[in-house]
Amino acid sequence: MASGAFEYYRKSQKAFLDGLIRLLQVPSISTLPEHQADVRRAAAMLADELQLMGMERSGLIEGRTGQNPLVYAEWLKAPGKPTLLLYAHYDVQPPDPLDQWTSPPFHPTRRGKNLYARGASDDKGQTYILLKAVEGFLQGEGRLPINVKFVIEGEEEIGGAHIERYVARHAEKLRCDAAVICDTAMFAPGLPTLTTALRGLVYVEVEARGAARDLHSGMYGGAAPNPVQALAGIISGLKGRDGRVRIPGFYHGIQRPSEKERAGWKRLPFNESKFLKLEVGSGALEGERGYPVLERLWARPTLEVHGIRGGFTGDGAKTVIPASATAKISMRLVPGMNPGDVAKKFASQVKKLTPESIQTTVRVLSSAPASLVSVDHPCIKAASEAMESVFRKKTVYVRCGGSIPVAGLFSQHLNVPVVLMGFGLPDDNLHAPDEKFHLPNFYRGIEAVGRFIQLLGQ
Amino acid sequence: MASGAFEYYRKSQKAFLDGLIRLLQVPSISTLPEHQADVRRAAAMLADELQLMGMERSGLIEGRTGQNPLVYAEWLKAPGKPTLLLYAHYDVQPPDPLDQWTSPPFHPTRRGKNLYARGASDDKGQTYILLKAVEGFLQGEGRLPINVKFVIEGEEEIGGAHIERYVARHAEKLRCDAAVICDTAMFAPGLPTLTTALRGLVYVEVEARGAARDLHSGMYGGAAPNPVQALAGIISGLKGRDGRVRIPGFYHGIQRPSEKERAGWKRLPFNESKFLKLEVGSGALEGERGYPVLERLWARPTLEVHGIRGGFTGDGAKTVIPASATAKISMRLVPGMNPGDVAKKFASQVKKLTPESIQTTVRVLSSAPASLVSVDHPCIKAASEAMESVFRKKTVYVRCGGSIPVAGLFSQHLNVPVVLMGFGLPDDNLHAPDEKFHLPNFYRGIEAVGRFIQLLGQ
Repeated sequence: MASGAFEYYRKSQKAFLDGLIRLLQVPSISTLPEHQADVRRAAAMLADELQLMGMERSGLIEGRTGQNPLVYAEWLKAPGKPTLLLYAHYDVQPPDPLDQWTSPPFHPTRRGKNLYARGASDDKGQTYILLKAVEGFLQGEGRLPINVKFVIEGEEEIGGAHIERYVARHAEKLRCDAAVICDTAMFAPGLPTLTTALRGLVYVEVEARGAARDLHSGMYGGAAPNPVQALAGIISGLKGRDGRVRIPGFYHGIQRPSEKERAGWKRLPFNESKFLKLEVGSGALEGERGYPVLERLWARPTLEVHGIRGGFTGDGAKTVIPASATAKISMRLVPGMNPGDVAKKFASQVKKLTPESIQTTVRVLSSAPASLVSVDHPCIKAASEAMESVFRKKTVYVRCGGSIPVAGLFSQHLNVPVVLMGFGLPDDNLHAPDEKFHLPNFYRGIEAVGRFIQLLGQ
Repeated sequence: MASGAFEYYRKSQKAFLDGLIRLLQVPSISTLPEHQADVRRAAAMLADELQLMGMERSGLIEGRTGQNPLVYAEWLKAPGKPTLLLYAHYDVQPPDPLDQWTSPPFHPTRRGKNLYARGASDDKGQTYILLKAVEGFLQGEGRLPINVKFVIEGEEEIGGAHIERYVARHAEKLRCDAAVICDTAMFAPGLPTLTTALRGLVYVEVEARGAARDLHSGMYGGAAPNPVQALAGIISGLKGRDGRVRIPGFYHGIQRPSEKERAGWKRLPFNESKFLKLEVGSGALEGERGYPVLERLWARPTLEVHGIRGGFTGDGAKTVIPASATAKISMRLVPGMNPGDVAKKFASQVKKLTPESIQTTVRVLSSAPASLVSVDHPCIKAASEAMESVFRKKTVYVRCGGSIPVAGLFSQHLNVPVVLMGFGLPDDNLHAPDEKFHLPNFYRGIEAVGRFIQLLGQ
């Protein structure tokens, strides 16, 4: 590992951190239209940085009106060597509830070995790992041992419509031998981890409407339909108290992971009661009976309500029967499930559960298939060796319950293995208050990606 | 009816309307703390007006810190004549959703024969009927034929804690022969109506808590508890799809109205399909099977969700498992049900319906018993005659599905019959956008209350 790149990594730690802090100060929240300018600012910062470090054709790829740009850059001066596509995303989730943050979400704050900010782990910290790993070669050695393409999107948190269209239409431009997605977590601090599968997603909004307007519950209670009551009935009807999703055909076609894979999971340092106490913090866990926790999280489909809203929710007592209520619901999918098919089954079950007095509408906000890679592919083996050499522990293979739709896109349209090399930690508070990134993982992540690039060049 | 009071009513219609408009311009929303000053302003306006018209001891009665004042005034110069307690309320419901109003809620606007404003019908228009009916005698004849006490409260929409305590402690000051509550509706335009019963109320807030903080649904979905899901299950468990409340013992002790009363209801000009189309505006009606609509609205207890909130409800897709969710729920009670007892049964059923992984809290925000009066009391007969003489139709006896807790207080602590003489209309949009008051009822209401006072003085 004694090369210019690794020298460069060691002497640049402060500069790397300063750069990351600048990127985290930009509230590039893709779900909120009022942050459109911030989203573009984050994209421009990355494009500038890619150019400065020596990448070529660096710039923004615009999509349709209203879509967020992709940041693209390439370095293709290693003929005969493999080409790696490096993917991450620069958009972040909204920070609410704001009052639950210890320090402001867009004012990155270091406490102990962690850096706290919205996007610290998901995914600006990891975006930066890819940039700095490549920068090490370009600045420390004047060249890369392989060919590299960057594609960094700004719509990961809102369904990724732009990249979905782009990958489908420009497979030639993105042609590569493998793709790296840097947006996952290590199983435990210090434990090098490769993720071999992701769950897919169907995210929907269900609106229930009753009377033409809000009604007085004294005057109409007992005769007028109540859309909150109806929506509660629908939600209850979609998932049983045993954790089983009650949509006919929902579990059709899925397979349990192999005995060997599940045996590997059993050896992982996972303590259910610690998970309950320290990570979840509730009185008990939930989920489908008969499956261990890790299997429920990684290899079983689920249905979750993300939010619900209807009627009067201010202080005090307003006696109204609301005219409408809305819920946001998603289903996580596992290999073997088709997103379009699941969305159809969902809508048809909602219709069945809707009382005559109520009208419901189901809108699909985003969807993505699950994805799965083979642990025997040479790229996965190189990634594993790179991580082991930096973290000095055996790499573990896990799955991830989250959804990274672009993984499916890459395997479908580019037909390459997708290496999910991630450096987050399980307690990073993704999508929640006090999101953080463990800084030792930031620096070692850069080295591990650098080592992976080096191995692929040999 | 040819007397100075009735002369005065006829020549003062414009002045009455102008005064009402001024009162409606004050956003005296008792549920919203930021409108505390407006609430006090409305109270002061009424006290000033009562003094100007010739009432005595007019002023504000203060309660505990943070409570809204009662407006009090009396005129007791008719020894040997009955004393009437006149009750109304000057506080109003919040106006939201604001975007559904045709004209701004606190900018009273006349369209056709209606005056549109928050509080127009509930209850400032009716408060003003009482004031102006009395003003007619004092200004038109120099004296009243009976003794009168006004008590006008500012917390009717938030549970009425102040008046509850005041009536219990100052029964002597409020001593009277009958109480008039002017806060109900006529069954149909032009049809004089007396309300013989009101439903009671238990209003609660249920909070469900799961994980210690919001969690990523990809990382935790399938193991973490979901308080929205749990709350939906609780709400579904509290009321069946057949409209029956599923709280053990909920219906215990209630009696159906007499055959005669129900026969009277059947003769009322009520058309179920018009009610559905024009008033409710949904695809079908809801409620307990086996009971006609009017009986469901007036004489059956109900359970309604007024609002629900939890998790992410903004635009787009946030994949969070929320840490908590809250619902506002009320039960309407009929004679024979005890509010404290119902609240206890509710809380215990919520507890039973709560999964192990979730913690629920039930807070009772307000409660009041149902009330019932006899149609044979001389005061009710006089009220009936007064209304018939003004509206020139036979008075009908109905019940009201709404709750006016003060009616129970008056019968309990003052031990007097409560005359529910109201001039609203069924389509007044109480508690909803575009609340209005039918102006012909405003003027005739003043005359009817005047005639009632006259009859009691004979």
